[in-house]
Amino acid sequence: MTSHHQAPQRLSERLRYQGRKFGFEAAGLRLPNGAEGEFETIRHPGGAMAVPLLADGRFVVVRQYRFPLEGWLLEFPAGTLEPGEAPETTIRRELEEETGYRAGRWSDLGSFPLAPAYSDESIHAYLAWDLTPLAAPPAQDADEDIQTLTMAALDLEAAAFAGEVDAKTIGGYCLARSRL
Amino acid sequence: MTSHHQAPQRLSERLRYQGRKFGFEAAGLRLPNGAEGEFETIRHPGGAMAVPLLADGRFVVVRQYRFPLEGWLLEFPAGTLEPGEAPETTIRRELEEETGYRAGRWSDLGSFPLAPAYSDESIHAYLAWDLTPLAAPPAQDADEDIQTLTMAALDLEAAAFAGEVDAKTIGGYCLARSRL
Repeated sequence: MTSHHQAPQRLSERLRYQGRKFGFEAAGLRLPNGAEGEFETIRHPGGAMAVPLLADGRFVVVRQYRFPLEGWLLEFPAGTLEPGEAPETTIRRELEEETGYRAGRWSDLGSFPLAPAYSDESIHAYLAWDLTPLAAPPAQDADEDIQTLTMAALDLEAAAFAGEVDAKTIGGYCLARSRL
Repeated sequence: MTSHHQAPQRLSERLRYQGRKFGFEAAGLRLPNGAEGEFETIRHPGGAMAVPLLADGRFVVVRQYRFPLEGWLLEFPAGTLEPGEAPETTIRRELEEETGYRAGRWSDLGSFPLAPAYSDESIHAYLAWDLTPLAAPPAQDADEDIQTLTMAALDLEAAAFAGEVDAKTIGGYCLARSRL
């Protein structure tokens, strides 16, 4: 991301809230272009995502319940960075927890902002190769409801057109495809 | 998105805030899998995005200041749905306001969730064809700081790998490419 050495000027603070996984604030700001107004922001520690590719060309995908949408989505495994944690560490853990696979090789696909209109979250994407199923997969987080499946590229694209795949997963798929 | 006819059960409400463009709430929930906890949610009316394709194969992109990141990103033109507004209406207006182009033809690319871990926002994507520059482009929103540029597909991919492109834009590019 291009930096500009000009931060928004904080004029007032209306609300500051620290949630379980991220913070939320509402503040009066003056932007570098002079615009003033009330702006709301999610403060997020960032995330990491794996694009897990099997030897036969299929992708490992998780089917996950998402309470804001009250439904299930198809997503690449991903997780929120713990304080001070490197994204490589996060994603090794999350891949094993969410899918029961371990990757022998990782390729860095860079990071991208998820919802920059109102969140500072960026997600770091990695292509995960040389996948082997763990004999004893670790336990999932208690608040997660996840199934693992494998999908061919064309089936994943069809699911994306049907609205069953989220933006980070489509983005990760796109970055991975341009490297394959 | 797959619906499941099972909504999270609301146990308590800790915070409810209505911002300029979306709402925020923190509540104790019991999820369909039985997990209980405090969950934070962005309530967003949804958005619409254009993937504007010029006759020479280049894409029209906006370079936009994003205050949560305190920097500029390259994005496809997009906007938030006004109350009761169809996404086709939103995106026609936003394309003209943000880029000064009008599209003669639109193709529906479907919609996808943006940040389903904490937001109910989905964005509806359209391929915008037959672009003509407006003689008198409409005024931009006062709080926007936007430049229009055109980019070849390979340059847009390179910018994505450099972290200068957001998830919805990479997703829209990916869906558009699979239809071109």
